[in-house]
Amino acid sequence: MNESKQAPIIILARPQLGENIGKAARAMLNFGLKEMRIVAPRDGWPNPDAGPAASGADIVLEKAQVFETVADAVADCSHVYATTVRKRGVTKQVITPAEAAAEYQSNNGRSAILFGAERSGLEGHEVDAARKIITVPINPEFGSLNLAQAVILCAYEWSKTQKLESPPATDLAPPAPQKELDGMIEQLFELLDERGYFFPEDRTPVTQSTLRNLMTKPAWNSGEVRTMRGVLSVIRTGKGKGRIRQD
Amino acid sequence: MNESKQAPIIILARPQLGENIGKAARAMLNFGLKEMRIVAPRDGWPNPDAGPAASGADIVLEKAQVFETVADAVADCSHVYATTVRKRGVTKQVITPAEAAAEYQSNNGRSAILFGAERSGLEGHEVDAARKIITVPINPEFGSLNLAQAVILCAYEWSKTQKLESPPATDLAPPAPQKELDGMIEQLFELLDERGYFFPEDRTPVTQSTLRNLMTKPAWNSGEVRTMRGVLSVIRTGKGKGRIRQD
Repeated sequence: MNESKQAPIIILARPQLGENIGKAARAMLNFGLKEMRIVAPRDGWPNPDAGPAASGADIVLEKAQVFETVADAVADCSHVYATTVRKRGVTKQVITPAEAAAEYQSNNGRSAILFGAERSGLEGHEVDAARKIITVPINPEFGSLNLAQAVILCAYEWSKTQKLESPPATDLAPPAPQKELDGMIEQLFELLDERGYFFPEDRTPVTQSTLRNLMTKPAWNSGEVRTMRGVLSVIRTGKGKGRIRQD
Repeated sequence: MNESKQAPIIILARPQLGENIGKAARAMLNFGLKEMRIVAPRDGWPNPDAGPAASGADIVLEKAQVFETVADAVADCSHVYATTVRKRGVTKQVITPAEAAAEYQSNNGRSAILFGAERSGLEGHEVDAARKIITVPINPEFGSLNLAQAVILCAYEWSKTQKLESPPATDLAPPAPQKELDGMIEQLFELLDERGYFFPEDRTPVTQSTLRNLMTKPAWNSGEVRTMRGVLSVIRTGKGKGRIRQD
């Protein structure tokens, strides 16, 4: 199984046990996924419990990158998927691991799959960064999928698509990496904050979450994000080129 | 997920660790499989290590039947599948978990899937009882699937054929009607025009076309369009509720 540029990156958000990080690495490599990112591991990194649990998948652990926040970890990714066990009150498209796997190959730009902490899962603001939700259809009377099992099902579905080798779409620019998107969103927040948009104050996180989801939905590419930033700049200053000329 | 007569029976041949039996039970129940048979468990049965590892899938363990030989365990089964990690010199058809899952439902008579001991796998004479071989397509450079993982992949593929719990139907609101979208876009154009965004003048149609495309791409629904119009209003007046309160 060759390494593929289209292979999704596996991102573990705030994993608690090193053993589970090792098991996730093993699950990944079984199906040819090699790129792991770890966000704020509870017990630091490297973790001596990870290696033995990886059962030989050491290369995944050795190359794993560590980040402080989910935002940092997805900064260069154009397509972010968040895994959740149960449906929540989210307004994003919910797809299966198989449906997601069908997308990675044709996605233009890097894909990443976010997995939350063992017990608590992903936090709301971490899900905000994702364009779609992956939910494993599970026994409604007994849902008890652990981290490595969720990872293995996503990796397995990805590997099943690898025989097909449909070339990635290259004629369209990919969605802007998350970092560029975040920059635009921050600019919008500043603009709105100056104008008293956020009120009452204690609702600000919820309102910002709504706006972040709204701005993530478009899948704007880098050029489009730049255009939007230009729009926001002119709105803020009120001094577009047409105005300056008039002055 | 309802119990189905067509659900395959999971048969563990000579499992060594009670913990792995428990994990297999958990993997099964996650995807609605409830019938486990255990052949000659090394440490006897019941095994105190199985329960904790099952994480609540106790019903599977409680109902598990124990047999002395694989032949006894499959005696009432019409369709026996043997799982092997590597292709061996067998003269049986080798299929994937997905292909096998497509068969269970239409099989006339009970189906059973045989899983071998943790290290050694199934013995030759145990494979003899099977009509077909199930092999998980795995990374040829790193195949390290443990017992519970092999079970979960087979159970997962079975559940996909049941369609009893497809992912939540997307009750997402449709994109706003074009008229609502146009209203929002006009509002943006007025805002930008006031601020001298459109320059030079003869480029205005092209610039507006760019912005119109950009605003059409998100497929925002009616609620999201209303939110955006609220954002644009506050930006224009600079008088959000937070600001008014301060004044």
